[in-house]
Amino acid sequence: MSTKLIFLGGLGEFGLNFHLVETDEACLIVDCGFQFPEAEHLGIDVLIPDFSYLESLGKKKKLALALTHAHEDHVGAVPFLLQRRPMPVYGTSYTLGFLRERCKEFELGGLDFRVIKGGERFSAGDIEVEAIGITHSILEPLAFFIRTPGGTIYHSGDFKIDPSAPDGSHFDLERVRALGGEGCDVALIDSTNAEKSGHTPSESTVGAPLNEILHSAPGRVFVTLFSSHVPRVKMLLGLAKKQGRRVCFVGRSLKRCVNVAVEQGLLHLPEGMVVEEADAPGIPEKQLLIIVTGTQGEPRSALSKLAFGRMKYLEIKRGDWVVHSARTIPGNEKPVGRILNQLLRLGAEVITPNREYPVHVSGHASREEILQLLALLRPRQVIPIHGEYRMLLANARIAKDAGLAEKDVWLLENGMTAFLDRGHLLSGDPVECRRIHIDAESSAPVDDLIQADRASLAKDGLVVPVVIVRGNGRLDRPPTLLTRGLAVQGDLDDALDDCTRELERDFKAVRPSEAVDIDAARARVKKSVRHYFKSRHQQFPMIMPIVFEV
Amino acid sequence: MSTKLIFLGGLGEFGLNFHLVETDEACLIVDCGFQFPEAEHLGIDVLIPDFSYLESLGKKKKLALALTHAHEDHVGAVPFLLQRRPMPVYGTSYTLGFLRERCKEFELGGLDFRVIKGGERFSAGDIEVEAIGITHSILEPLAFFIRTPGGTIYHSGDFKIDPSAPDGSHFDLERVRALGGEGCDVALIDSTNAEKSGHTPSESTVGAPLNEILHSAPGRVFVTLFSSHVPRVKMLLGLAKKQGRRVCFVGRSLKRCVNVAVEQGLLHLPEGMVVEEADAPGIPEKQLLIIVTGTQGEPRSALSKLAFGRMKYLEIKRGDWVVHSARTIPGNEKPVGRILNQLLRLGAEVITPNREYPVHVSGHASREEILQLLALLRPRQVIPIHGEYRMLLANARIAKDAGLAEKDVWLLENGMTAFLDRGHLLSGDPVECRRIHIDAESSAPVDDLIQADRASLAKDGLVVPVVIVRGNGRLDRPPTLLTRGLAVQGDLDDALDDCTRELERDFKAVRPSEAVDIDAARARVKKSVRHYFKSRHQQFPMIMPIVFEV
Repeated sequence: MSTKLIFLGGLGEFGLNFHLVETDEACLIVDCGFQFPEAEHLGIDVLIPDFSYLESLGKKKKLALALTHAHEDHVGAVPFLLQRRPMPVYGTSYTLGFLRERCKEFELGGLDFRVIKGGERFSAGDIEVEAIGITHSILEPLAFFIRTPGGTIYHSGDFKIDPSAPDGSHFDLERVRALGGEGCDVALIDSTNAEKSGHTPSESTVGAPLNEILHSAPGRVFVTLFSSHVPRVKMLLGLAKKQGRRVCFVGRSLKRCVNVAVEQGLLHLPEGMVVEEADAPGIPEKQLLIIVTGTQGEPRSALSKLAFGRMKYLEIKRGDWVVHSARTIPGNEKPVGRILNQLLRLGAEVITPNREYPVHVSGHASREEILQLLALLRPRQVIPIHGEYRMLLANARIAKDAGLAEKDVWLLENGMTAFLDRGHLLSGDPVECRRIHIDAESSAPVDDLIQADRASLAKDGLVVPVVIVRGNGRLDRPPTLLTRGLAVQGDLDDALDDCTRELERDFKAVRPSEAVDIDAARARVKKSVRHYFKSRHQQFPMIMPIVFEV
Repeated sequence: MSTKLIFLGGLGEFGLNFHLVETDEACLIVDCGFQFPEAEHLGIDVLIPDFSYLESLGKKKKLALALTHAHEDHVGAVPFLLQRRPMPVYGTSYTLGFLRERCKEFELGGLDFRVIKGGERFSAGDIEVEAIGITHSILEPLAFFIRTPGGTIYHSGDFKIDPSAPDGSHFDLERVRALGGEGCDVALIDSTNAEKSGHTPSESTVGAPLNEILHSAPGRVFVTLFSSHVPRVKMLLGLAKKQGRRVCFVGRSLKRCVNVAVEQGLLHLPEGMVVEEADAPGIPEKQLLIIVTGTQGEPRSALSKLAFGRMKYLEIKRGDWVVHSARTIPGNEKPVGRILNQLLRLGAEVITPNREYPVHVSGHASREEILQLLALLRPRQVIPIHGEYRMLLANARIAKDAGLAEKDVWLLENGMTAFLDRGHLLSGDPVECRRIHIDAESSAPVDDLIQADRASLAKDGLVVPVVIVRGNGRLDRPPTLLTRGLAVQGDLDDALDDCTRELERDFKAVRPSEAVDIDAARARVKKSVRHYFKSRHQQFPMIMPIVFEV
């Protein structure tokens, strides 16, 4: 009668959230996100979870997928999952509307999408899930209260506690208090901002500086924000109207998010408010707000194209104001900086979040909000989720500060499991927690060997020695050496000539035989060429010997 | 009689500072640094300046190199320069001591190193240079006042104005004031922190928190800092002595900097104070301070080895305190985070610069210090140097706030030149400003073509089709396909078999001829293989056809 919790993503890292709640009858999946690759992942576009644990469950258990919200680190890998195993998918209308668009690219049929709202319940076998409306930097985010034979689980999703969210979203703290009364055995809590003291400012605080900018700017205002941040888009639409500016959306992902919100009746675009990009140059500059993608310096984003003059209808010039209404995700500082520098070169005024213009706030709970949630929910045990180890650790400390005993705060990482048995957590065996690296164009997985080869080719290049031998093992003609990506001091052709001569010398030393041993000849070629580049050039290219008998 | 200023690095970027002051008789080079590569530079270790402008000057002009200080972005490319063209090199004893060590790796002979101190002068042809003692995060930094036929130039080097530098270094502000009285035509001013308001805190402010840490830590204290920051090492030695801790240095670059300082009489290691790494485990933990390299998450640094348990004598454990006494350079957040997370996993207490423990201050001047310098020097014109465009722009604004006219503040970038004629700046033609990419192991330059090939190999991998044809153009035997780094959906061998069959089909369609055209056959192979992978796998590997006639 115990319930197993399996953490296959998002614990000890950012992105790729993928948590399982397994019972005798069913397995509930909470979120299925992807992750962007690191610099050392060559030719990789996304990392998705390894679904082999799910496959090992066989066909008998009921599967269901519950989505907290539509950020890519929570839903990005869903199409890959549904490709392998269709199952019912629960989420709010915005979340599922967004996902439906993503699934179109995969040409997935037979989607079983089931719209839920905060306050509603659904079940999968002996697991019952209650959705709770919360606040976050996206439309219609949810937390889940999960009732299982082994005990009750609160899954926080990504959240902040915003008492005055300008899009009208509302954190149902009353319901959380009631659930606390019913009894929460374990709470899984978002750790993203656990290192931050105090209370994350309300999204509404961004309104005043944005309004001030729309009012003061002498000409066009460009605002870049996360394309998923439709609540902020909604606020900007209101401010633009007030300041007599019309709005132009630029960037595919932004338009997609806006369209989904409009289709679901969550965003209203007043008649005549939206300007097409092609028409923007005809609008008086003081009457224009242009919302663009590209907060993280993505090279193919609208902001990057603007900065480097690769946009069809729009061009940055002196007098334009550009507002970076987002944080820079660690690791993206250089590409973001490159674009902001370029905008400044073109004469634009660039505004990044600062004391004068606080044009961005986080969507994640700081220490005081986490304490507030814990006070209402009064969980018996806490497992910090969503964050690097340092953030999980900070969140664990908050739980202890909230009065939980050391033994009731579980610091787990990806691949770890726990059992919930009559409401108590027990350690489980670790499970394998790999990542599948995907080449986006072909959707082909890129395994470790392929990656190692790419890394070697990228670092040192390649030499392909082509050697044709006679039946007696002697060379039929001089070897040929081809290279790609190889750097040597001095002239490359000279180096290749030298290497060829060494190869010929090596082959002259071979005693002629009756039947040539091609494998031995190949090994000899590889050794000779490797030795030449190592000893003469301190270089270690990949060597692919091609040896033929004629 | 005019003087030409040529900016070949450090304007509009971080790192690689390389400025020339050219007259009829001479060319003075101020600094010659390198830069670390970006993620997109594959298999590159450093970027150095292109010296072709210097080479174009011919042999007649007197050359001299003046070094402001020993940071790698100011001296790192000097050995490459001296390899091509020997010349006198002026710098302080620490700067030249450090450089001498670097030059040993290059086996450079006949070095003409000339030690100077603040207050001293030297000349190269009609250029006279006066060194000025300043303060920065390194031993013995200098600024230069350069008297030329076209006018006088103040080169700030990297600086802060630290009135209480704990290593006893002193910014000779009186001399700057006197030079202002003599008349400074143009000032080249460090922009690194120009965006920061106020005054950068004194290095001495780091003393109290470090002392507190050495006092409070229950066991060993590890401090990681920039290995060039010997002033802070010196301070730590004093604090360690006070707190009854002995000091262990770990990391090659740190030991090198410490040794140079000791050799030059700039650092004193009291008898019995220093512990070898091998002996550290024998010292009571409360009596040990271990200073290590690795502030930027470098994978082969001491801190990284400690975090991942790859150190011979030392191992991190619960109770250890690790202090990150440095800033994280933008772009290095992920590798630094990875190490700090790992140290936390091992149970260490990790302290990064924060309000409670301000364990790092910058070595660069903020707005108020720049204003102070400008007030003393009263330059007629200002050119911001050292920084990305946004920092140069912020520095230009400071100069205007100091009272300079718009036309007297010159916002230049790499490759731009200016003439100084009777004290007035005039525009010069731009010059080519390239970077040479160097593979450190071999010192071989890596050109654009090589880099493009490496990028292609890294992204999509490689296919080598080997095709042997007869004299009539028909296949002699079935083609062979070798691959590296290629990802396909499904089985790779099956894909290669399919591709081979298509190749055979293509060759069957060829009309037999009397003399085979090898180039045409090669083109056919390439086209066929490319088409196969594109149409069947949405993949675009590099294709290196090898076609032979037998």
